[in-house]
Amino acid sequence: MDASSRLAQQVEFLVAVDELKQVFRQTLLIRDQRRENDAEHSWHLALMALVLAEYAAEEIDLTRVMKMHLIHDLVEIHAGDTFAYDEVGNADKAEREQAAAEQIFGMLPQDQERDLRRLWDEFEERKSADARYAAALDRLQPLLLNYHAGGATWRNNGIARGRVIVRNEHIAEGAPELWIYAAQLINAAVDEGKLDP
Amino acid sequence: MDASSRLAQQVEFLVAVDELKQVFRQTLLIRDQRRENDAEHSWHLALMALVLAEYAAEEIDLTRVMKMHLIHDLVEIHAGDTFAYDEVGNADKAEREQAAAEQIFGMLPQDQERDLRRLWDEFEERKSADARYAAALDRLQPLLLNYHAGGATWRNNGIARGRVIVRNEHIAEGAPELWIYAAQLINAAVDEGKLDP
Repeated sequence: MDASSRLAQQVEFLVAVDELKQVFRQTLLIRDQRRENDAEHSWHLALMALVLAEYAAEEIDLTRVMKMHLIHDLVEIHAGDTFAYDEVGNADKAEREQAAAEQIFGMLPQDQERDLRRLWDEFEERKSADARYAAALDRLQPLLLNYHAGGATWRNNGIARGRVIVRNEHIAEGAPELWIYAAQLINAAVDEGKLDP
Repeated sequence: MDASSRLAQQVEFLVAVDELKQVFRQTLLIRDQRRENDAEHSWHLALMALVLAEYAAEEIDLTRVMKMHLIHDLVEIHAGDTFAYDEVGNADKAEREQAAAEQIFGMLPQDQERDLRRLWDEFEERKSADARYAAALDRLQPLLLNYHAGGATWRNNGIARGRVIVRNEHIAEGAPELWIYAAQLINAAVDEGKLDP
């Protein structure tokens, strides 16, 4: 493949991923309670990775973590967002997302497809220090937004404290101090009537 | 400062930057021509940095480039977005953004404030290989979106080919092959009636 068609392929991918800005999550933005989209969420995570790096449980490679955050939701362009607490949707989520990963990463030149696909698989499996730290932030970010937006996402979906704990406690594997912080935030949310006990 | 108040300060910053999702640019998204916000734009740039790294004019440190992209528009939370072709707005842009940089980066612990402020200054000044590559993508991304969204941003603002060339030709300093591609895209936009000649 010559350089120009390689570049054309890369640009086609970069144009296609504009669609990530159209995939809306359940999380609400703090100021106007508009639903957050996956591109905004991915940016927020990568910035958190940078600012909170000192809390990672083990030594991490920040570049790999930021890359994971930037690409982790691209599959949702085809598979859609599955709400964290949607048990039916989560039953076939992995299968839908594997097919979507082939579709979206398959747009890239083979070397880049292979690298990004491996990185995405690693993130999904949480089997490395980088992936565990990246996944911890992917849980902490919506907690922060839900708390500061007044808890509407929890209350509107009938989510109480116990499910929030179960869903998020793996933050402790990637960043123990951040889980201590998150647990305090969850308790504060209950005390303040933002989250059902 | 003990660890817990350091973390509280970092979290306060990470909550405040949720506002970047409320700063809207002139660029329109490809599918629904809704205005893009700074958080979406920053995510797109960092992903481009990763995919297009091989086109950087000189050797670059991808981590530093991605960090620049993640933080480069944070000042607009306080200074607002200034349209690339707004000559009045651009006259005092630097001054407004310097004040905004003190405000937003000043929320962080001093070591992180210093590091991110230096990185932002470096990006603004385009005086390193990393900054020139990062800045090239900051120009290429809206070009791609304007072209694929049909050129409305150019036509609605009375922007013709000459001004697009002058505004974007420094892409060549950071990524010469990407400037060749961009120049072809600009010419195609003129041929297709998306941009006035």
